[in-house]
Amino acid sequence: MQPHHDGSARYVPEQTPDIGDTVPVHVRVPADADVRQVHLRTTPDGEPRFAEAVVDRREGDDVWWRADVSVRNPVTNYRFLLTGRRGTRWLNAAGHVDHDVPDAGDFKLVTYDPPPAWARDAVIYQIFPDRFARSAGAATRPAPDWAVPCDWDTPVVGRGPETPYQFYGGDLDGITGHLDHLDRLGVNTVYLTPVFPARSNHRYDAASFDHVDPLLGGDAALARLADAVHARGWRVLGDITSNHTGDGHEWFVRARADAHAPERELYYFDADGCDNFSSARLTPRRDLEPSYESWNGVRSLPKLNWGSAELRRRFATDPDSLLRRWLRPPYGLDGWRVDVANMTGRRGTDAYTHEVAALLRAVATDTRPDALVMAEHGHDHTGDLDRDGWHGTMNYVGFTDPVWSWLRAGDDPVPNFLGTPGGVVRRDAHAVLATMNAYRSLVSWRSYTHSWQLLGSHDSARIRTVVGDAARQEVAAGLLATMPGTPMIFAGDELGLTGTNGEGSRTPMPWHRPETWDHRTFETYRSLIALRRAEPALRHGGLRWLHADADTVVFAREAVDGTAVVLARRAPGSPVRLTGLPPADNVYGGAPPLRPDADGTLTLPADGPTFQVWRTT
Amino acid sequence: MQPHHDGSARYVPEQTPDIGDTVPVHVRVPADADVRQVHLRTTPDGEPRFAEAVVDRREGDDVWWRADVSVRNPVTNYRFLLTGRRGTRWLNAAGHVDHDVPDAGDFKLVTYDPPPAWARDAVIYQIFPDRFARSAGAATRPAPDWAVPCDWDTPVVGRGPETPYQFYGGDLDGITGHLDHLDRLGVNTVYLTPVFPARSNHRYDAASFDHVDPLLGGDAALARLADAVHARGWRVLGDITSNHTGDGHEWFVRARADAHAPERELYYFDADGCDNFSSARLTPRRDLEPSYESWNGVRSLPKLNWGSAELRRRFATDPDSLLRRWLRPPYGLDGWRVDVANMTGRRGTDAYTHEVAALLRAVATDTRPDALVMAEHGHDHTGDLDRDGWHGTMNYVGFTDPVWSWLRAGDDPVPNFLGTPGGVVRRDAHAVLATMNAYRSLVSWRSYTHSWQLLGSHDSARIRTVVGDAARQEVAAGLLATMPGTPMIFAGDELGLTGTNGEGSRTPMPWHRPETWDHRTFETYRSLIALRRAEPALRHGGLRWLHADADTVVFAREAVDGTAVVLARRAPGSPVRLTGLPPADNVYGGAPPLRPDADGTLTLPADGPTFQVWRTT
Repeated sequence: MQPHHDGSARYVPEQTPDIGDTVPVHVRVPADADVRQVHLRTTPDGEPRFAEAVVDRREGDDVWWRADVSVRNPVTNYRFLLTGRRGTRWLNAAGHVDHDVPDAGDFKLVTYDPPPAWARDAVIYQIFPDRFARSAGAATRPAPDWAVPCDWDTPVVGRGPETPYQFYGGDLDGITGHLDHLDRLGVNTVYLTPVFPARSNHRYDAASFDHVDPLLGGDAALARLADAVHARGWRVLGDITSNHTGDGHEWFVRARADAHAPERELYYFDADGCDNFSSARLTPRRDLEPSYESWNGVRSLPKLNWGSAELRRRFATDPDSLLRRWLRPPYGLDGWRVDVANMTGRRGTDAYTHEVAALLRAVATDTRPDALVMAEHGHDHTGDLDRDGWHGTMNYVGFTDPVWSWLRAGDDPVPNFLGTPGGVVRRDAHAVLATMNAYRSLVSWRSYTHSWQLLGSHDSARIRTVVGDAARQEVAAGLLATMPGTPMIFAGDELGLTGTNGEGSRTPMPWHRPETWDHRTFETYRSLIALRRAEPALRHGGLRWLHADADTVVFAREAVDGTAVVLARRAPGSPVRLTGLPPADNVYGGAPPLRPDADGTLTLPADGPTFQVWRTT
Repeated sequence: MQPHHDGSARYVPEQTPDIGDTVPVHVRVPADADVRQVHLRTTPDGEPRFAEAVVDRREGDDVWWRADVSVRNPVTNYRFLLTGRRGTRWLNAAGHVDHDVPDAGDFKLVTYDPPPAWARDAVIYQIFPDRFARSAGAATRPAPDWAVPCDWDTPVVGRGPETPYQFYGGDLDGITGHLDHLDRLGVNTVYLTPVFPARSNHRYDAASFDHVDPLLGGDAALARLADAVHARGWRVLGDITSNHTGDGHEWFVRARADAHAPERELYYFDADGCDNFSSARLTPRRDLEPSYESWNGVRSLPKLNWGSAELRRRFATDPDSLLRRWLRPPYGLDGWRVDVANMTGRRGTDAYTHEVAALLRAVATDTRPDALVMAEHGHDHTGDLDRDGWHGTMNYVGFTDPVWSWLRAGDDPVPNFLGTPGGVVRRDAHAVLATMNAYRSLVSWRSYTHSWQLLGSHDSARIRTVVGDAARQEVAAGLLATMPGTPMIFAGDELGLTGTNGEGSRTPMPWHRPETWDHRTFETYRSLIALRRAEPALRHGGLRWLHADADTVVFAREAVDGTAVVLARRAPGSPVRLTGLPPADNVYGGAPPLRPDADGTLTLPADGPTFQVWRTT
């Protein structure tokens, strides 16, 4: 057992520090660790400072040291210097190192307003509206001109010309009619992918932000869904495209048609002689189709230009901006997931991303103080968090990918949704922990725990296809439910649905074929979510790795009022033996209680795949 | 031998890319490396992109792969994915990793204007004017009121009430009179610590920026020194305090005396009722000494407030600003070392640092296009480089500290100048390389090579005291002269002078006691500098680690026109055997040439301490 610190309340009792505060932080040092002295290092105003820690108390075999952090800057980084007989070493968020390292891996205290309190206990259920459920009204609506109408049983085409146009006709009242399913599962937050009119089934090519797609039931249906969700005490989140609109968007239609339209500056028209960057060359050439910047070169998704004050007004600051309107009654969305946040505001020398994030958050929380603003980020998000912008991100890189790589069935890699050549290959648990720690150590505990952990989404393969069977899916779902971070479940994963890529995973929910449901997997998810909701340590506890071998991970979630010990195995192996832990009763998985032998050793089960959770007594 | 890439010209022929360029980058893959395919990964506009590399050519046993980087943003990060029979791994600036890692360690292409060309070949000689040499005129000047006058032989007091006031009376004409010494040594750039009037021997407490301290000979003496330096084809750099002035500074005197003075806003007066942040409370209370922000709480060093437009004007943008004036004839400083750059512009929620860096660089290069602007940064500088500000930094953390820790004599740590408790402890070479790589991997090759490598300065112990003897100082000086980065030598190190801390190291140069000079050490420095100046690979080559054990480091500097192989040993041990290298002749240290045996193995010497350099034939 190594000396330990993380940003959780057990180690940092003050979770919402302000500038000017003095915040005590604690290090737990096992009795047999070689530590005689502990110093705190901070860098207030950019200069290193050291302060000596003192022994705060002893608990069992552990010595708890305490040091005071002076919170001087919006983000205060800190780490510990541990001195023992065998020399000194650093303890930072990446772990223990015996040589000097840059500050990026330091622990961090963040003074910006915290995310809304409800987000701490959220369990997110992601719904892709076209594929979730049809209400009775759905049948009365004709399919739109762009659509390839599909029966609910039509196989989803994961890749092909029809992919974005397959239209199943799920709608918002369909979701409202199935909230009992979510209740049985135990989630408490509904996240809807876009509901604005578009010319595709995914609707990330918005044609307007001013009303809900009539194909989904229109504004009134969203209000009914929001009411029903809120009546259960739950929350509902929307999905907003800040990086681009569809080329059918009313803004873009006007901008494209008229170089003098006020909407022109909302986009990047570069090469057409109507370049909005050089007014000296304002010579409209209406004979040519203007060229414009678009998402990854996809011309149906013209990119928004956040250098435009008019865009900022329409999108955010205007009293009736789109960002505000849907957060207010009668819709009352509880926040936004922001699509392609990673590219928003970035183009060439334009670097508005952090400004935009701060603007969207400020406007959202001004509109309703409990609004949540989450960034989509499919790769390294660490440079965009811990500012006054995004509350968190979708943690594909620090959770999804490593879990996939560990639990992958067979030797074939998972084709990666971000296109990494070779896909996600099978790795052992050391690589998994190294990856998780690499990303975690660069952000604050707050940003880490408020980011969404997910096993997949509408943009990826489904976890069942990745791991191959229910037993390994249970291990994956177990990690989802017991690790720090906000669990997000893509609708249908709980039924064992499959899918080999993002588009192919947008499977209609088989409401009418309950015989196809994987009831064991549903029960797994249900009981794991219930466990998380019952155990504060699983929601708010720290993260302390206890053991890793190729096939096994063991960690503790320590909270002020108890500790959970988690064992995840992808295969059978040797039993793991641990010392320094108190006895614990099994609360998930059915293994025997953990009782120390005469030497104080606890022996964990050797079978696998298995997922077990104990709670200290 | 591992597949290799770094940012040097051998691997990145285009060293000054512009936005919009397509820049080929190369990976060298030894024949026996498990690599079948190479992909390039970049993140243009914040989204990952992969491109397949192609085989460019074969050289000996090495395959050179080539991929094209589209330079889309001011800083473009990239890394390689290597695919072999045993799976995939990343190659980034931190090395090889078999799991996913954040982008911070990626290689970087920077499109901002490069540092001036002369800086690429600079060898810096740092002079602390009070201690370097007295001219004939020095004796005629009475000591100032604050001074404790000292004979040239008076021992320097490293720590005590007299420390800042010991006055030896070195002056600028004294420096001018000793340039032959610098010429013999082989340096080509003089860096002067501050020359403005002050109330201390170090002059970091400037009383004015408008003239040179008369105690140093005044403005004319600086002009004479600059002329003499330039006549030799060398460069001369000044030292400017952007974080604070002295409390005797003419600005501060006026600001303190009058809350309505225009200078008031140049500083942070907070707590006195004359708070310049809340004009509503402008109620001067002249009965109280106003409180103000100062450097580390030292009241004689009031901190400058870069939120002030007036400060920006006086310091930088005004046509006759202090920053500009001294860069122009008749002084013609070639640039500035910026004191306490790490704290400049940082205070609480104020975060002007990057703005200030960009402003100072823009103004300096506007004044003279070949100006150099270097940041003092005593800890992690990586977040402040690769912007449009500082050209480089003083690389204490990525060079000085690791070299000290490796070559430290005995078991006592070196008391660290930044106050790390326990000081700099002895480590083996693996820790040294890990530290060097940790910092290097976070900045561009350009920023790394334009940062100053140093073995010590006026702010630290002297290298001779750290390592204990001439043999180990030779190893240290060897690393200084052969690693990437701009060597900086603190005057006197080349004579084997000693000093246990920064102030104690400000030893008067023993011109009049040549019998005390360590002539062996002088010859070591002279020949190492000559070697660096003669071998382009040592100035512009890449960095490829070839071997490390506790007591040994071997690396190659590869340039287009040749490769240098460097062996540094702190102690004798087993001979290092290397394969995959061509034959090489010894060019420093006297070891035999490297000739492959029948198996193609080269055997390096086993004795130590030793420092050897070979050049491939």
